Amino acid sequence: MGAMMIKRRQLLAGSAFAVGAIATGGKAIGQDAAVQPSDLPEYVSFKQPDAMIVHSNNTIETKREAFGTAPITPQDRLYVRNNVNPPSPSVLDDRDAWEVSIEGVGSPQTLTVGDLKAMGLETVTMVLQCSGNGRAFFDHETTGTQWQTGAAGNVMWTGVPLRTVIEALGGASEGAKFVTGTGGEEFPEGAPVNDVIVERSVPIEVLDNILLAWDLNGEAISLAHGGPLRMIVPGFSGVNNIKYVKRIALTENETEALIQQSRYRLYPVGGESGPQWPSVWEMGVKSWINVPLGDRPAGPVVISGVAFGGMHAAEKVEVSLDAGETWHEASVVGPDLGRFAWRNFAFATELEPGTYTIVSRATDAEGNVQPEETEPNNSGYSHNGWRAPAVEITVG
Amino acid sequence: MGAMMIKRRQLLAGSAFAVGAIATGGKAIGQDAAVQPSDLPEYVSFKQPDAMIVHSNNTIETKREAFGTAPITPQDRLYVRNNVNPPSPSVLDDRDAWEVSIEGVGSPQTLTVGDLKAMGLETVTMVLQCSGNGRAFFDHETTGTQWQTGAAGNVMWTGVPLRTVIEALGGASEGAKFVTGTGGEEFPEGAPVNDVIVERSVPIEVLDNILLAWDLNGEAISLAHGGPLRMIVPGFSGVNNIKYVKRIALTENETEALIQQSRYRLYPVGGESGPQWPSVWEMGVKSWINVPLGDRPAGPVVISGVAFGGMHAAEKVEVSLDAGETWHEASVVGPDLGRFAWRNFAFATELEPGTYTIVSRATDAEGNVQPEETEPNNSGYSHNGWRAPAVEITVG
Repeated sequence: MGAMMIKRRQLLAGSAFAVGAIATGGKAIGQDAAVQPSDLPEYVSFKQPDAMIVHSNNTIETKREAFGTAPITPQDRLYVRNNVNPPSPSVLDDRDAWEVSIEGVGSPQTLTVGDLKAMGLETVTMVLQCSGNGRAFFDHETTGTQWQTGAAGNVMWTGVPLRTVIEALGGASEGAKFVTGTGGEEFPEGAPVNDVIVERSVPIEVLDNILLAWDLNGEAISLAHGGPLRMIVPGFSGVNNIKYVKRIALTENETEALIQQSRYRLYPVGGESGPQWPSVWEMGVKSWINVPLGDRPAGPVVISGVAFGGMHAAEKVEVSLDAGETWHEASVVGPDLGRFAWRNFAFATELEPGTYTIVSRATDAEGNVQPEETEPNNSGYSHNGWRAPAVEITVG
Repeated sequence: MGAMMIKRRQLLAGSAFAVGAIATGGKAIGQDAAVQPSDLPEYVSFKQPDAMIVHSNNTIETKREAFGTAPITPQDRLYVRNNVNPPSPSVLDDRDAWEVSIEGVGSPQTLTVGDLKAMGLETVTMVLQCSGNGRAFFDHETTGTQWQTGAAGNVMWTGVPLRTVIEALGGASEGAKFVTGTGGEEFPEGAPVNDVIVERSVPIEVLDNILLAWDLNGEAISLAHGGPLRMIVPGFSGVNNIKYVKRIALTENETEALIQQSRYRLYPVGGESGPQWPSVWEMGVKSWINVPLGDRPAGPVVISGVAFGGMHAAEKVEVSLDAGETWHEASVVGPDLGRFAWRNFAFATELEPGTYTIVSRATDAEGNVQPEETEPNNSGYSHNGWRAPAVEITVG
């Protein structure tokens, strides 16, 4: 059932074990040869090759089976998605010297990471998820990377709250409605800046959630993930979390950059993008199963996966073994890492011989229920339907 | 002041940057050349060489500065301490096939890791700390590795609660007073088993805390840290957390193994060990500073470190800039990972030019206060005094 939702060309391309497993009850078809260390671009050579699906140099997905039952996603298996090539690795030579200019405040100032480290300390755990995660699950044809479940991870960021920095610089200037962050990517001389710059604006209402982070899972942020400094907007999808952040401005308007004005907008299939359509900001309530993914003998099993609510914690998760006909409440397990984090869930049962279509459905703390399908949008953003990531297995 | 507490031979040996930094206000003396990847034993080749102090093949410490402000300790910089050489790496070839026998229950049975994974799922975060961590800070001469602060880390274990397994096998047999775990280390044919076996007993009262874990920080446990299966006893010092666990028995008596009967006992300096002395079980309330460790210019600073309570969460942390003359309350920051975890703390202040002796003092949820000094014991176990790990720095 769930497998039917996956586009035929995906099955033929066979870009991942999970697709094959879903489509054939565990017997992968068209499965790629294992990723070799040499298949990884140099700047992500620290990734576990056998945990990753390399779509391109700048789009690298975590295999579904590599999530396992991890409460946090290790940096060496976290997905990578860069809109533009990262800057030179030399920006990491002296991390504390990296500069970020803070504008739209009482006393605008350029601060180094070293300065920021002397201002405050906080850690936030959040789901980092590419806006296009699950794009492969939409029925309509989309351009862009055909991510399945693996352009997401649950990670801990350590840094200083942006609010602390803003207050130290005299507070927000009057009329500020957005927090606009600019990435430090380098692009070719003469390139049309607005077309290529990674600059995103988010509503100032979320200012108190924002962190200027230098550590990821307790280690200095790698270049691939935005070190030396990344602007973290918990609950907002990946693109809003600006890597190599070099400027943060409290602004009256959204940035004019293409990546804000027409890219990352939710508009109808076949339509035209533009600033009149909603921006890809807050993530929706979502869950999926990670264990088991393949056929197994009859007997006891713990079905587990991850659930999150974007801006709100996932409070309840249900599991269905029959494609959503009947539901069973699962337990949330492991540490409560805060409202922006994902939570593992587990449902222990006994499976008789037969075929099963296993799905999960999360409800967040505000009562929002994960939908069966996601309303299509042209670019295939923000997929959170419960049906498409179904796991079909044969037991016995 | 704090520096004076460190034994002179330690300073001369200069086994770590931290000692030098403390003793001389940031100008390391007798500092080792950086650890090279080739200095790491093969089974821990995944460690970050520059984060580690290699005391021996089986005793490898995390450098104090490598803790940084991490809420969890990455596996690649977690300390290593093995009482016996680990078993062959081939035990990881088929992790789910690893067997553990469960005895002292209604229906004793041998289970595989695969079986355990089908029984339940939980994650617990806990401070893993070698019983000898801080041994270098005792004034008396001790044999054994001269650990400072770095034989500890805050890590997440995922597995199945032992209680779930026991209940599935008919419950604890009558009269059981201890949980006895046996490690799967191999030792030479003919070796006196009781002298070398890694077998420890802990009181059955902590049964509900125990986890049989297959994942560490979201990844399959490495050989160095006890994979494929480790018995985790949260709040109890390292030796009680049995690696490569192959047998768990609910027993009436403590094991006769030397490692239980006479090793890991708290007895007076110069005395004789034996089962009449307290076993090294629960850890005490403890904290130390990790940032800053070296000289710095005058101005703002965030002083931070870690605090934990062993069996109880650290609830309050105070920081002193004058070796304990006056105290300031610090904030706990980051996620609350449960009562067995450590918590980062932070104290933001401005430092005028001068010299400072920075210390921290934790209080746990039961009101236990970290002592200024730890009552000496012959083997230098369970150090938790606040004075000795002092950081002396010069500002200006």
